[in-house]
Amino acid sequence: MSKLLILSDRAEEYENILRAAKLPDLEIFAFTGADVEAKIANQCEIVLGYPSQIRDNLPSLTKLRWVQTISAGIELLLVPDLRRDYVLTNARGVFGDLMSEYVFGYLLSHEKHIFKHRQFQEEKCWDGSDTGSLRGKTIGLLGVGSIGAHIAKTAKHFGMTVHGYTRSSESSPDVDVYYHNDLMEFARGVDYLVNIFPNTPDTQKLLDASVFRALPKTALFINVGRGSAVDEKALQAALEEGKIAGAVLDVFDEEPLPKDHPFWTTPNLWITFHTAGPSLPKNIAHVFIENYHRYIKGEALNYQVDFERGY
Amino acid sequence: MSKLLILSDRAEEYENILRAAKLPDLEIFAFTGADVEAKIANQCEIVLGYPSQIRDNLPSLTKLRWVQTISAGIELLLVPDLRRDYVLTNARGVFGDLMSEYVFGYLLSHEKHIFKHRQFQEEKCWDGSDTGSLRGKTIGLLGVGSIGAHIAKTAKHFGMTVHGYTRSSESSPDVDVYYHNDLMEFARGVDYLVNIFPNTPDTQKLLDASVFRALPKTALFINVGRGSAVDEKALQAALEEGKIAGAVLDVFDEEPLPKDHPFWTTPNLWITFHTAGPSLPKNIAHVFIENYHRYIKGEALNYQVDFERGY
Repeated sequence: MSKLLILSDRAEEYENILRAAKLPDLEIFAFTGADVEAKIANQCEIVLGYPSQIRDNLPSLTKLRWVQTISAGIELLLVPDLRRDYVLTNARGVFGDLMSEYVFGYLLSHEKHIFKHRQFQEEKCWDGSDTGSLRGKTIGLLGVGSIGAHIAKTAKHFGMTVHGYTRSSESSPDVDVYYHNDLMEFARGVDYLVNIFPNTPDTQKLLDASVFRALPKTALFINVGRGSAVDEKALQAALEEGKIAGAVLDVFDEEPLPKDHPFWTTPNLWITFHTAGPSLPKNIAHVFIENYHRYIKGEALNYQVDFERGY
Repeated sequence: MSKLLILSDRAEEYENILRAAKLPDLEIFAFTGADVEAKIANQCEIVLGYPSQIRDNLPSLTKLRWVQTISAGIELLLVPDLRRDYVLTNARGVFGDLMSEYVFGYLLSHEKHIFKHRQFQEEKCWDGSDTGSLRGKTIGLLGVGSIGAHIAKTAKHFGMTVHGYTRSSESSPDVDVYYHNDLMEFARGVDYLVNIFPNTPDTQKLLDASVFRALPKTALFINVGRGSAVDEKALQAALEEGKIAGAVLDVFDEEPLPKDHPFWTTPNLWITFHTAGPSLPKNIAHVFIENYHRYIKGEALNYQVDFERGY
């Protein structure tokens, strides 16, 4: 009998889904996070939860063997000095659909002048001028893992060209992608730039003033990866000086974004609230269930994180 | 030698594209519409242009044999008492991409709460609640010709189910569509309803109070067909009473929409300006060029309109 600790503000939803799945030889304990009893935590060898809540409970988890995170991002568990004596798997393969919908929602809003037309409506102004189109445009993806591959397929559906800047260790997706290893050359050739990179040592402030200078003035930048990949002051300056046409940010250096942060009112900047790729229990539970079947058979788990590499 | 009269506010663009195509045995005369010289019009057997401008010049076109319209809609040329002694072909097969981008721009804006998030940003309010998704939703298409087929393919890409309500004479597109012939049953089963029907006797006020009552309260209605298909007062009431979640209209009974029309300020209504499927010269010229090659070979022209049927 294995014991599973669920740590999530939606613990009850996860518990219900997993109980309904009738996983063999599994006892389930569900907590919202702050309320974990140490005498239960120290019996559990498996944890399903958010990195912050798992981190806070690591000292009590004396029998820990496997952590399945609810999120894709796991950087909080990679901090030096934290224990690494367990198998860490993150949530992958479940965000592509949602992220792709988010990215194309904003790309189409941009091309179709959706906000501008709303403004015209408010002014009771009939403006029949032409809008743009995705067809023939080039999208540049920073990161072409499972999320990037999904975005690339949607881009192809809309008749776009896909360029990718990627770490060599990532496998290439099943779509035509022109790969680059020169970031400046890559940036110069795209109409839209989408960052999907996780928070790793390699990606810190990768998007700096030189990248925003290299992008065409008409370019739109979208960040659905991690805030740490962006030099926020450089992006603010690029938007204020009109070096790029706009940006859409779902992630930030500090979240929630502080009330006095200039991004709330930076021109041509749309912000959302780390909502582009929500961790929906029905999706994440499915990742856990498949991995649990592998776990009890002694097979290698899906989506294992390399603590050194950071993803 | 055939003589072609171009009638468009973008006549010069059309003329340049057609001259560059070096069409054999063709003499081209280009006018913006109001300025046509009758002594030139009465030499021309072919006209490429907008229906309104063609209609105004029909009496002068004594040698007319073929009209290629720049638009998909041709209802102005179908008015009783106007001559019908020529072959009428409309623009088809070129609007699917653009219409599909428009429809999915608004569907994604709706699901991803793009306007609501913009409002939160203006209020400096971080709201991390979940947004929706297209996956698993059902889109209902009123009309499944070439534009509908394109929208259906995009819907399939996003993991949606496609239902179609169609005239029996339309060929079915190369996608899975569940066909209905009961409009109320069709309306009850969709999350989004998209009208693509042209203006024909069959489609007058097809979307009336009973249809808006049959739709789920969460439904979004999009009209990219013709305004005449909608009972505008019934739609206004449905939106004011919350019978449907929202509507996006690109076409209206009267265009431009009169300044005092209630639609400018109806709640949950987004209006655009007959811009969803713009007639771009580079696209329309391609339709003409292909048809011209058929014309000089004496072959049947593409996209012939049946004057009786209305499309």
